[in-house]
Amino acid sequence: METVRLRLDVAYDGAGFSGWSRQPGLRTVEGELVHALATILRRGDQHSAAPRLTVAGRTDAGVHALGQVAHVDVSAEEWEAMARRDRRRGVVDGAPGASLRRRITGIAGRAGDLVARDVTVASPGFDARFSPLWRRYEYRVADRHAPRDPRRRGHTLWFDERLDLDAMDAASRSLTGLHDFAAFCKPRPGATTIRRLLDFSWSRDAEGVLVGQVRADAFCHSMVRALVGAAIAVGAGRFDEDALHRVLESTQRSGAAPVVGAHGLTLVEVGYPPEHELATRAELTRARRGPVRSGGPVRSD
Amino acid sequence: METVRLRLDVAYDGAGFSGWSRQPGLRTVEGELVHALATILRRGDQHSAAPRLTVAGRTDAGVHALGQVAHVDVSAEEWEAMARRDRRRGVVDGAPGASLRRRITGIAGRAGDLVARDVTVASPGFDARFSPLWRRYEYRVADRHAPRDPRRRGHTLWFDERLDLDAMDAASRSLTGLHDFAAFCKPRPGATTIRRLLDFSWSRDAEGVLVGQVRADAFCHSMVRALVGAAIAVGAGRFDEDALHRVLESTQRSGAAPVVGAHGLTLVEVGYPPEHELATRAELTRARRGPVRSGGPVRSD
Repeated sequence: METVRLRLDVAYDGAGFSGWSRQPGLRTVEGELVHALATILRRGDQHSAAPRLTVAGRTDAGVHALGQVAHVDVSAEEWEAMARRDRRRGVVDGAPGASLRRRITGIAGRAGDLVARDVTVASPGFDARFSPLWRRYEYRVADRHAPRDPRRRGHTLWFDERLDLDAMDAASRSLTGLHDFAAFCKPRPGATTIRRLLDFSWSRDAEGVLVGQVRADAFCHSMVRALVGAAIAVGAGRFDEDALHRVLESTQRSGAAPVVGAHGLTLVEVGYPPEHELATRAELTRARRGPVRSGGPVRSD
Repeated sequence: METVRLRLDVAYDGAGFSGWSRQPGLRTVEGELVHALATILRRGDQHSAAPRLTVAGRTDAGVHALGQVAHVDVSAEEWEAMARRDRRRGVVDGAPGASLRRRITGIAGRAGDLVARDVTVASPGFDARFSPLWRRYEYRVADRHAPRDPRRRGHTLWFDERLDLDAMDAASRSLTGLHDFAAFCKPRPGATTIRRLLDFSWSRDAEGVLVGQVRADAFCHSMVRALVGAAIAVGAGRFDEDALHRVLESTQRSGAAPVVGAHGLTLVEVGYPPEHELATRAELTRARRGPVRSGGPVRSD
């Protein structure tokens, strides 16, 4: 059966979700999107299967996203039927993707905390999970230097000590490169912990809030929050600047600082290669990320 | 009895409050602060009276603040008793104001939505309400051009049309100056509606969100939200650029656009004159704002 692959760009406030991945009885981002898509595609009668989403970054409970990317395959018939309904309704503003975007937001994002920013037909070879070149996260920390903005407390860690920006920044930058990040990963059987950390740096925004930028080809589980926890330990003077590199080289989780709270973390952007490299990149990633478990590919975001 | 006047700089997320002003049975910013101060000052036994707060901007339900300012008078005895308790507890980081700041935030801001940013002994002649030269508000609007950030939906109006920034900005700037703003005020008997609008302008921030800056010597009730509603009507093409000035000159509320939602509005800053002008400025303002009702001075924020 011919299928059409749709790319969904979504943003969400993580506070109201038990993370990305569907779980019975819990409100999750994937669960809300699957429900919305099933409603819009009118599945249930003709199809026994719920739409299956594949995502770039399986965010944990409480983690936010501005630039999350997922894909879903719909049949050419479903796609055409949607377009026909749009035409009947007199939807005029361009591609069926635009009306799909509005309807997904209307159904899945009734609470305002989940927004479909864009829905488009994916380029050939596109795979939301395996095509990315990198994922970029931001972590916000208001230390004692920074004024606290209660409006933004849901996505900012409030830290009651002074943090040394330069020390944090230097220590964080020293971790970039291709390394075994086992010391900063929750172990998962069969999954590699080797990652290429492309950026890890800190600056203060206009209000004085510390913003950590973390970009890597992919992240193992809890890696960003473990890295940020370690950087904060340096900023607070509990670790010296070389400590992060020593912890990295030890590949032992025991030496690391505590993982920081999820609410300061936002998946900001997923970087994909140009269209002609999408398929090659996906094949390369699949080959490199190691074995596939019976329940599906191992977590690699 | 000798008193010490304390200046409180506070920030809050308006979503959890029924506005600034104390109301029986409702959670208000003033109510939380008065409760915290009464607890810290150990009133109740010695004093029958709750601490009385005077505020720069009596924000409505749902309106946020980053730079709200209030004052409270405490007796010299209470102030000295607090300082003694701090010394006994070994509080070392400077003035009693610092420990008071932390305790107010700890008691009034348990939910994280109310923060005392600073507590200091006020300069001589300081009056939170009558000394200000101006109040500055910001209003955030994400129109169809701007990506929606679900993390910030609590303090941003989502508007589903495209807004013409230049038209809004030009129309808004045309309203600055000393005018009778009756067309943009909820009428209150005996209160003047003449205000000096110092700034009213629009720009897009780095994310593309429209941010309106509104600064005036003082605002009558609902004035900022009426001005913003009118500017949005221009941006959406429902009013032409000259319409705002015509509405202003009509001094008739009927001609104005709908008042916009409270949640997009934040009191950002209150501007006070240099110390030697504080008392003169307060006297001048009291004289100019017109009659005083039996229930206290008329609303003038």
